[in-house]
Amino acid sequence: MVASEVRALFAVASRPEVVSLAGGMPNVSALPLEHIGEIVQQVIAEQGATALQYGSAQGDPVLREQICDVMALEGIDAGADDVIVTVGSQQALDLVTRVFVDPGDVVLCEAPTYVTAINTFAAFQADIRHVAMDGDGVIPEALEETLTRLAAAGRPVKFFYTVPNFQNPAGVTLSAERRRRVLEICRAHNLLVLEDNPYGLLRYEGEAVRALRADAPDNVIYLGSFSKTLSPGFRIGWALAPSAVRAKLVLAAESAMLSHSSFNQMVVGRYLSTHPWREQIKDFNEMYRERRDTMLASLEAMMPAGTTWTRPEGGFFVWVTLPEGLDAKAMLPRAVGKRVAYVPGTGFYASDEGRRNMRLSFCYPSPDQISEGIRRLVGVMKSEISLRDTFGTASARPPAGNDAPSPDLP
Amino acid sequence: MVASEVRALFAVASRPEVVSLAGGMPNVSALPLEHIGEIVQQVIAEQGATALQYGSAQGDPVLREQICDVMALEGIDAGADDVIVTVGSQQALDLVTRVFVDPGDVVLCEAPTYVTAINTFAAFQADIRHVAMDGDGVIPEALEETLTRLAAAGRPVKFFYTVPNFQNPAGVTLSAERRRRVLEICRAHNLLVLEDNPYGLLRYEGEAVRALRADAPDNVIYLGSFSKTLSPGFRIGWALAPSAVRAKLVLAAESAMLSHSSFNQMVVGRYLSTHPWREQIKDFNEMYRERRDTMLASLEAMMPAGTTWTRPEGGFFVWVTLPEGLDAKAMLPRAVGKRVAYVPGTGFYASDEGRRNMRLSFCYPSPDQISEGIRRLVGVMKSEISLRDTFGTASARPPAGNDAPSPDLP
Repeated sequence: MVASEVRALFAVASRPEVVSLAGGMPNVSALPLEHIGEIVQQVIAEQGATALQYGSAQGDPVLREQICDVMALEGIDAGADDVIVTVGSQQALDLVTRVFVDPGDVVLCEAPTYVTAINTFAAFQADIRHVAMDGDGVIPEALEETLTRLAAAGRPVKFFYTVPNFQNPAGVTLSAERRRRVLEICRAHNLLVLEDNPYGLLRYEGEAVRALRADAPDNVIYLGSFSKTLSPGFRIGWALAPSAVRAKLVLAAESAMLSHSSFNQMVVGRYLSTHPWREQIKDFNEMYRERRDTMLASLEAMMPAGTTWTRPEGGFFVWVTLPEGLDAKAMLPRAVGKRVAYVPGTGFYASDEGRRNMRLSFCYPSPDQISEGIRRLVGVMKSEISLRDTFGTASARPPAGNDAPSPDLP
Repeated sequence: MVASEVRALFAVASRPEVVSLAGGMPNVSALPLEHIGEIVQQVIAEQGATALQYGSAQGDPVLREQICDVMALEGIDAGADDVIVTVGSQQALDLVTRVFVDPGDVVLCEAPTYVTAINTFAAFQADIRHVAMDGDGVIPEALEETLTRLAAAGRPVKFFYTVPNFQNPAGVTLSAERRRRVLEICRAHNLLVLEDNPYGLLRYEGEAVRALRADAPDNVIYLGSFSKTLSPGFRIGWALAPSAVRAKLVLAAESAMLSHSSFNQMVVGRYLSTHPWREQIKDFNEMYRERRDTMLASLEAMMPAGTTWTRPEGGFFVWVTLPEGLDAKAMLPRAVGKRVAYVPGTGFYASDEGRRNMRLSFCYPSPDQISEGIRRLVGVMKSEISLRDTFGTASARPPAGNDAPSPDLP
């Protein structure tokens, strides 16, 4: 990792005068704190002896049943026996990688993909290959071509990792038609799909699309999370896996942490059973929709010619492509100097791509901050463009490398 | 793993009519539940926006300072910068193994050693070697001899894993004199020590001994936990490591889970700052001392000739050696049939040892249950002895293998 410089920069970027369009933090200030305060106290008062004790490595059976109800909203018919509760879906990603990946094994990802997934796959020495995306998600023909090429080269592929809804970082959603094609291709190649779906319920327009797992229970490991629909502070995520895989994941979880917090699992369970959580998600969605709309309108109104961006129907992120000759990574220190921060696109590739891209988050700043942030960003870009027009390039390119800090962190 | 049978047995053993001397669960019913209920509510009410958000991968700086105060009780002078908060000390063990161990690397452990440490080392394909112990802990000459032999064979050793206080499972404590010798030997061989100390503050007699880390800050990674001194339900443990190692552990933690629960860390922090936790530990120690005394007195009064056991000065466990010809693993189903459970010694070795041993826990059952449990166990042993005297052996030996479920779980 060569992250120290960018980490230092992000330390500056966390100052209050900087508008951060970088972090992927949900806006937890919209939560019903009073009710959550009651819930945590009730769990200790009424279930303290269990909540404060070790639990099972697979997770609380009551919560696992409730998780099945949540997944039913995305078309998934599953049993609690096949669910394992994890420390955020990040731990599920880590456990799946641990179980499946030997050094040198190929793992397929979208291009771009979630930065911490890259870090996790790299930690287990996977050979990370990207598959091209467009505005409708991963391109089936590109997936097919990649798999055929790797098969011809005798390279085993362990799984295809995808964030099909409102992807992090690109903001795009895999269309229903493409989901069918992707599943067909993966079935034909006997390839496991790792479906990571933290944002699926945060949809601000359009029709919900069935989870990949809903139509391929034997071929898909599904990862879910309460980090965006409730709070990341309890660190409750999960994996739903075919039972032979699930058994291996439970052993891996026991080795990794013995068991997750019984207390946190019971708190989330009580929240789900006592709070109108579907209404809460609707409230979240109204708030996030306004922020997304503000960001898209600001981009539309202010961005210089030659800039393009995605139009997410949900989730937290917009993916921007800068005009030719601009370099988002090289520009970042100057942007932070002008009190606006983003994550450069290079962090979302295992290869040296993404220099002309940046990820902008609209989840955490207020609408006013978002439009002010875009205004500052456009100012920086215009200076870069004028440098480019004078010298042919805006700046020396910094060295390549995956150097974004985890963008879910502040 | 060939654990399914033993797991099934432990499912039976968790029935209320069975006295379980198997689990390593602390007795959380002795906790001040009312105060803890207030604390969790206060954290949400007063610090909710932070508690419910993502935190840093290294952990809450306030809690890390408080952890340094806890470690000071064992002679450790450390700074919060070198502490990383983990999901129980189990995750710290996992992260250290992940950072240091490549497949085939040698890891040294005591004989016997903590079962889930064996599982974790095995998960990363370590070559696990045991070093002999006696009533004063690991034998320095055996450590020296093992290291010399491995060096001559050109086998790199990554670290020496030790539970120096009231060891799990043996109940023995490494003497002060031996700590000096062990540190000398490890320094001479340039070998890292992994000091796992979950029970250190639970001492019921005798003088506290300084942590190994207190006298060798550059050579020791120290693992601590609030699971036994407060509650395992919050899953708060930690590692204290030399700073170069600590930086690697933080990156590994980020890959493994992004960050631990901010909420749980703030709850434990508030408990430490608002509750007389040293007094609480004294109360725990009085309760556990009575249970230990009951177990030792029952063993003394009832055990058949030829049985020996350790006399722990603290912690949760007594290690029993059965008379010649008895096999603790083969006997377990009959013991459960007589409504008493324990963990067979075989689980605590990577090799095929420990057949004549069992681990008895006195932490969770009441004193009455403990003496009744020992009475039942002695009944089973007497039947085995009479079989042995008639047929020469008590029973067919079941196959070897590490098959204990994690003994901290119910």
